Amino acid sequence: VRYPETDRMGVAHHSHFLVWFELGRTELMRATGCSYRDLEDREGIFFPVVEVQARYRAPARYDDVLDISTRMVLASGARVRFEYTISRADDGSPVATGFTEHASIGRSGRPTRLPDSVLARFAGGGPGNR
Amino acid sequence: VRYPETDRMGVAHHSHFLVWFELGRTELMRATGCSYRDLEDREGIFFPVVEVQARYRAPARYDDVLDISTRMVLASGARVRFEYTISRADDGSPVATGFTEHASIGRSGRPTRLPDSVLARFAGGGPGNR
Amino acid sequence: VRYPETDRMGVAHHSHFLVWFELGRTELMRATGCSYRDLEDREGIFFPVVEVQARYRAPARYDDVLDISTRMVLASGARVRFEYTISRADDGSPVATGFTEHASIGRSGRPTRLPDSVLARFAGGGPGNR
Amino acid sequence: VRYPETDRMGVAHHSHFLVWFELGRTELMRATGCSYRDLEDREGIFFPVVEVQARYRAPARYDDVLDISTRMVLASGARVRFEYTISRADDGSPVATGFTEHASIGRSGRPTRLPDSVLARFAGGGPGNR
Repeated sequence: VRYPETDRMGVAHHSHFLVWFELGRTELMRATGCSYRDLEDREGIFFPVVEVQARYRAPARYDDVLDISTRMVLASGARVRFEYTISRADDGSPVATGFTEHASIGRSGRPTRLPDSVLARFAGGGPGNR
Repeated sequence: VRYPETDRMGVAHHSHFLVWFELGRTELMRATGCSYRDLEDREGIFFPVVEVQARYRAPARYDDVLDISTRMVLASGARVRFEYTISRADDGSPVATGFTEHASIGRSGRPTRLPDSVLARFAGGGPGNR
Repeated sequence: VRYPETDRMGVAHHSHFLVWFELGRTELMRATGCSYRDLEDREGIFFPVVEVQARYRAPARYDDVLDISTRMVLASGARVRFEYTISRADDGSPVATGFTEHASIGRSGRPTRLPDSVLARFAGGGPGNR
Repeated sequence: VRYPETDRMGVAHHSHFLVWFELGRTELMRATGCSYRDLEDREGIFFPVVEVQARYRAPARYDDVLDISTRMVLASGARVRFEYTISRADDGSPVATGFTEHASIGRSGRPTRLPDSVLARFAGGGPGNR
């Protein structure tokens, strides 16, 4: 938890959890061998967020070290969903859970089916931690 | 939409919608005569977010002017919920919808029933725009 | 001052002043009849920041209303400089001062002289407040 | 470089460099055995930024890995200064340089001389990388 991620309540502002979710899925994708940067730059595929949900269980404070566990739930057609559990690294206690759902679109902005090569890599993806 | 709120897709990053939701409920509360700052500073009541959900309908681009329409749905006991509709100011087309649910806690960190005076003011609150 | 702009010291994090500086120059440019969005979209000219300096005089707290006074100091060749004074709206007391210096580059990424039409408009620009 | 740290120019927004500077000094302090969190929580000493300067040499793009080299220049009396060099991790090319100057204040908000124990630890501090 970085200093400017805290607010005057002394805890991490709830909007930053969406950034941490993003770190989780970024590292999960990197671990599968297809980084999100490559997906955009080489495949011309973008994953705009169409829905997000987060439940906050316990506050996160400055300099806390957090684990982000990410799971890809479905990657069929032109829709991808990631599920997240954020917990404290020291005692594993839960901090937040949530999911994001993404459209898969091409450079033109139209929905695009994920290439089989990408789907195959995702299918073998495990949890991504930070 | 501020410049640093955009990302390399050229559109507002989805995490900033949570900040805009917050602007919506802040202005709604101010309009009822009990600003969120007063609630914290005078009443010692805080509204940490316990759940958030957002659906993104259309991208928001740099310098777009957006309207945030906020509605308080329930304010009973120690739980408050706000619902949001964000739309483009020029043509009213929808950009995003969502809600946040808040606990009402006191300085000690324990759930606190909202004072009747605050509940009464909220009951008369209308939509807040920006 | 928005809630997530505060940090656990209870004041606005110093990095947000750079965002407010940007609001100042954006509104100043809009007031001259050439918005920054138009400059990018129509003229293909970008103003990346090459240097920034800020001095912090007094803290800014949540929900404080601030004035941003912006002055364009030189707009010759391919270099632009803006100077900022941020003060409290209620009593005018100073909060921060600073400047940003910008290169003027074209879509190719190379330094580009500002069109005379833009320079002329800037020359007549007054202070921009928010 | 995180995704939301980029802007529609496709590069990291200049305001995030101040956050990265902060990561640099945080890790430098942690390396000296006195984390910034401890300084605040145990010693009751805060380091508000009184001046910042940054020069941007080259853009930083999404997913770039950056090194932050931090040096503490003076820690005498109630004033601390950190100097930063940010460079690309892959080829060491410079991205930005800058400094921050901090007041040292106590819980009361008044300038406070740093304890000798802290000064001594800082005196032995080396570069902090990330």
